[in-house]
Amino acid sequence: MLGRRQIITRASGAAAAAGTAALAAPAIAQERIEWTMVTPWPRNAPGVGVNAQRVADRITEMSDGRLTVTLYAGGELVPPFEAFDAVQQGNADVLHASPYYWVGKSTTFHPFAGVPFGLNAVELPSWLYYGGGQELWEEAYAPFGLRPFYAGSSGVQAAGWFRREITSLDDLQGLKIRIAGLGGEVMTRLGAAVTLIPPGEIFAAMQSGAVDAAEWVGPWNDLAFGLHEVADYYYLPAFHEPGPGLEVSVNEARFQELPGDLQAIVRYAASSVANETLADFTYHNIVSLDPLVEEHGVEVRTLPDDVVDALGRVTMEVLDEEAARDDLSGRIYQSYRPFVAQAARYADRMERASLSQRARVLGG
Amino acid sequence: MLGRRQIITRASGAAAAAGTAALAAPAIAQERIEWTMVTPWPRNAPGVGVNAQRVADRITEMSDGRLTVTLYAGGELVPPFEAFDAVQQGNADVLHASPYYWVGKSTTFHPFAGVPFGLNAVELPSWLYYGGGQELWEEAYAPFGLRPFYAGSSGVQAAGWFRREITSLDDLQGLKIRIAGLGGEVMTRLGAAVTLIPPGEIFAAMQSGAVDAAEWVGPWNDLAFGLHEVADYYYLPAFHEPGPGLEVSVNEARFQELPGDLQAIVRYAASSVANETLADFTYHNIVSLDPLVEEHGVEVRTLPDDVVDALGRVTMEVLDEEAARDDLSGRIYQSYRPFVAQAARYADRMERASLSQRARVLGG
Repeated sequence: MLGRRQIITRASGAAAAAGTAALAAPAIAQERIEWTMVTPWPRNAPGVGVNAQRVADRITEMSDGRLTVTLYAGGELVPPFEAFDAVQQGNADVLHASPYYWVGKSTTFHPFAGVPFGLNAVELPSWLYYGGGQELWEEAYAPFGLRPFYAGSSGVQAAGWFRREITSLDDLQGLKIRIAGLGGEVMTRLGAAVTLIPPGEIFAAMQSGAVDAAEWVGPWNDLAFGLHEVADYYYLPAFHEPGPGLEVSVNEARFQELPGDLQAIVRYAASSVANETLADFTYHNIVSLDPLVEEHGVEVRTLPDDVVDALGRVTMEVLDEEAARDDLSGRIYQSYRPFVAQAARYADRMERASLSQRARVLGG
Repeated sequence: MLGRRQIITRASGAAAAAGTAALAAPAIAQERIEWTMVTPWPRNAPGVGVNAQRVADRITEMSDGRLTVTLYAGGELVPPFEAFDAVQQGNADVLHASPYYWVGKSTTFHPFAGVPFGLNAVELPSWLYYGGGQELWEEAYAPFGLRPFYAGSSGVQAAGWFRREITSLDDLQGLKIRIAGLGGEVMTRLGAAVTLIPPGEIFAAMQSGAVDAAEWVGPWNDLAFGLHEVADYYYLPAFHEPGPGLEVSVNEARFQELPGDLQAIVRYAASSVANETLADFTYHNIVSLDPLVEEHGVEVRTLPDDVVDALGRVTMEVLDEEAARDDLSGRIYQSYRPFVAQAARYADRMERASLSQRARVLGG
């Protein structure tokens, strides 16, 4: 099962026999290609697993089975966090994941997964498609033989579940918290004791008091995890994940072997699922917040201003250091950070102001 | 040129001759179908025209020309606002537009185009795909023989350009303003003199003083229109267009004639362009606001609270009346409005709070 499953069968001579000179690429219509998709997600996990399956299904559907993609969920073909290696080595053809999982390969991947106080789920694809981000992402992945496509976002995530309130910066001292990525680095520098418990162990660690706080995703996924049963305070939103990005990344050599129409189908399958993934998370998060508050008595909180200010200050230090790592890091952040600054000014005038006006009218 | 351009050629017997029993639908691979797309937009108009072309191009590309879509811009095949009729009558096969242009056919179309203080560009597709909105939209379009697909949004638009400041509700009395849709109805009830000048005449009407104010789209498109040259005050954001929706709508009979793979290609071409259209507007609006302020000296303003409150109050009256028009209107608003209320609560805790924190850290 670990081997490559790409099979090409050719109905030899079919094009010539059929006399289909008018067809653009008759020989290609006779090929059948099978691709293996791997992910770190559990099968049909809400939001991520379901949308990985959508990518596989619609490539198969749009190509009428000429490119059939079979999804293997986390652990089914390779361990969850070896999906990138599997595609790099050609043991799989394509993955659905978050670049966040691969920052151990290269820290240049961070901005494509998301950084604290960075681009949100609407701005990130705008930078990728129109602001030069995609080309930088491809450059970052090229040494690994992978080609990335944007596959959507959860939208802004939750800061997490806390067993006690955070009323000032002092409360971060010694706080045992499960938090991922650069956000964890920022928290560490502010005195927190950061630990990265695997997702499946978060509930038990919170219940036993092994950690005081933990972030997971947002209301929809957190409700499914039952985290409201082991913590009273729910802090919204996440400073560190304003719009984390998902990816469909393909083995570059396999991608190059595809005819143009199948390349387009892979590309636009990812883009269409990007559209529907954000919609999926948005819909289900919206309808999950009220039950958390009204049925489960969760106390929703926002981090106090002095904590936000400190998180912001340390984030800028961390990003300065990330940008200084190497040439590519420098060029990525030189593109990313000025755009975040512009986006922040624009969003403050537009999206934030619009949401404030609506909340004023409808009751926030 | 007005006639139907759908041509189907069959390479007769090709499938049998080729012995391609292993292929899922060999006969279909031999068909070539040509579709005509019409739009109200000028050719390659930023945001809308360019993304209409993307839909046409990627259907053609993903199908390797088996379904070739040729775009006719506004006026090239039919007048801009007859695109819907053309598809209904079968003189064209598909359109790219906004449902807003067709509310004269049925006022049930409003929520799919957007309503004042309604769903934003992320929430609207979430309701369509996961909250029952798509089924209601299909029901609204079915009597006209059209099937709608969501094709993205500009994001929140601008309230518009004003020759004088709006400091209180009194300033709306007698204000001559160009404003579209239900927003115009709301403004009228608050004493404004609403007029709907065609887009091409907005600049001249503002320059001559025939109108005191006009809304168009947002910084990107407004800058291209030169509206900053004829008004000093730029009000952001639009209360009436928090995330107006675009559509790819197809003639239902033509859609049914397509094999499954081509139906999927049409569906996901629209969805992928939805993703990239919002990104396109977002990127270009973000990089257009600073030049308006810094190079052109535009004074950015937000409507005062008493004006927002009055707009909100009258909007709720207007939506109550819209919901009471008929059975379908009632069912649409019964689905839409409670979701807007939930979305407003969620966004206030999440997206708005996140943007506020980021503006605090980066300088809004």
